[in-house]
Amino acid sequence: MIERLCVIGVGLIGGSLARALRAAGYVGEVVGASRNAAHLQKAQDLGVIDHYDTDLASAVKDADMVLVSVPLGAMEAVFAAIQDALGPDAVVTDAGSAKASVVAAVQAATGETPAWFVPGHPIAGTEQSGVEASFPELYQGRRVILTPTEQTDAAATRKVRAMWEAAGAVVKEMEVGHHDEVLAATSHLPHMLAFALVESLARMSEQREIFEYAAGGFRDFTRIASSDPVMWRDICVANRDALLAMLKSFRGDLDDLSAAIEKRDEDRILAIFQDAKAARDAFDG
Amino acid sequence: MIERLCVIGVGLIGGSLARALRAAGYVGEVVGASRNAAHLQKAQDLGVIDHYDTDLASAVKDADMVLVSVPLGAMEAVFAAIQDALGPDAVVTDAGSAKASVVAAVQAATGETPAWFVPGHPIAGTEQSGVEASFPELYQGRRVILTPTEQTDAAATRKVRAMWEAAGAVVKEMEVGHHDEVLAATSHLPHMLAFALVESLARMSEQREIFEYAAGGFRDFTRIASSDPVMWRDICVANRDALLAMLKSFRGDLDDLSAAIEKRDEDRILAIFQDAKAARDAFDG
Repeated sequence: MIERLCVIGVGLIGGSLARALRAAGYVGEVVGASRNAAHLQKAQDLGVIDHYDTDLASAVKDADMVLVSVPLGAMEAVFAAIQDALGPDAVVTDAGSAKASVVAAVQAATGETPAWFVPGHPIAGTEQSGVEASFPELYQGRRVILTPTEQTDAAATRKVRAMWEAAGAVVKEMEVGHHDEVLAATSHLPHMLAFALVESLARMSEQREIFEYAAGGFRDFTRIASSDPVMWRDICVANRDALLAMLKSFRGDLDDLSAAIEKRDEDRILAIFQDAKAARDAFDG
Repeated sequence: MIERLCVIGVGLIGGSLARALRAAGYVGEVVGASRNAAHLQKAQDLGVIDHYDTDLASAVKDADMVLVSVPLGAMEAVFAAIQDALGPDAVVTDAGSAKASVVAAVQAATGETPAWFVPGHPIAGTEQSGVEASFPELYQGRRVILTPTEQTDAAATRKVRAMWEAAGAVVKEMEVGHHDEVLAATSHLPHMLAFALVESLARMSEQREIFEYAAGGFRDFTRIASSDPVMWRDICVANRDALLAMLKSFRGDLDDLSAAIEKRDEDRILAIFQDAKAARDAFDG
């Protein structure tokens, strides 16, 4: 049970957590915080938060749990603003989609790797964003990855785990670097391919005639190219090394397939497609 | 109006055309043909065809329209089997997803570029296949591309166009090579990326642990990797040159994005993502 939850950045992710915990009766009071009073007023009007504060330090003062759900590029400033205002038992977690960069941000802001900080990443979201899009079921059955550091207090990790479980999520723990590799592979690389493909086709045809002949498969394949460009730019910068390694590895595999097509190596082409289909069918099943 | 339609290869594509033309009252009689009597019997039981013949030459004898909807690798043998049995006014079209290779197949089989052949490609389909998956609305509002050659009889093209329009499709004509480039870009390249990505990730993690953390975007992005491996191997061989050119061009764009990430060139990364999002949003809108 959380007495007072402070959500810094009340959008889809933070708003949905607040709604889920309220629905579960797992939170006493929810305080919203950010620099944008209009956004916060909207969240309060929607009943997502009880009240709000545009001063981050005073917002966290009596909170026993703080969720930092702001863009990756804004993390360091938030940690700097709140560190001295946190109560002695306060636990802080975040929702960033790359974790080494958030750990680096908290280290840069505080000069240490604080015991009160539990890096976290809910693998959930929709193409929408903003508090209007938030809903209490967003985390039902979804994975949340926690990446506690060696310095993280074990009791703090347990408290964050219990919170996400109360919101309906399945919580896993892994090492920071492993998280960043897994996400580079399953999320960041696919986004790069979708953005690069659509941009490539758009340049190829000024009149966009080419898109007229695209069918349903193309629609599904490229949907993620509609994602927020600024958020994804931040992810590229934040998870640069793991993403570059994955891009390089993928390029090797694509070159391998291209070479098989060039050589008309039908057995090799078929083997690649069969392996892929088996893995994809297993993923669905 | 078609008196007698012969469908060679009665699967999703051919079966749905037969159902659509029946529903529109645009066809008198439908004959199914292939080497597989069990498949054909199923199509007859489902009411998709009126009767069937496992001898292709006798199946086409009294048909005024023939649809060849067999895998690309089987086209040449079909044309060789039917050419001498076609009536003087018979028109033949196909449904292959690459067109230069089908024109080459008909040329190899007949020693000419026949006036009676209208190369065609319905841009429609589902992840299912087989006659059980066929339904009359498959072509409603979907594009069908016809790529008549210089030798194709204009009246034959008109007859094929009218047939697809009766099935609910929007018919466009383009040059064979242009078709193959457009499809390489909007369909064949995305399939290569999806197959290569899933195979790449599958090899990366023997336990498939990596797929556990994949979210909805990954599911959509990789759905086409569940497509039929044999059909896609055939497409790679049939549209090899256009596909290789597209793979090369895409690799250049992916290298450009990778270089921007490597150099932390945030403006360039953002510009690529913004262009892609604008094009993708326009495609949906």
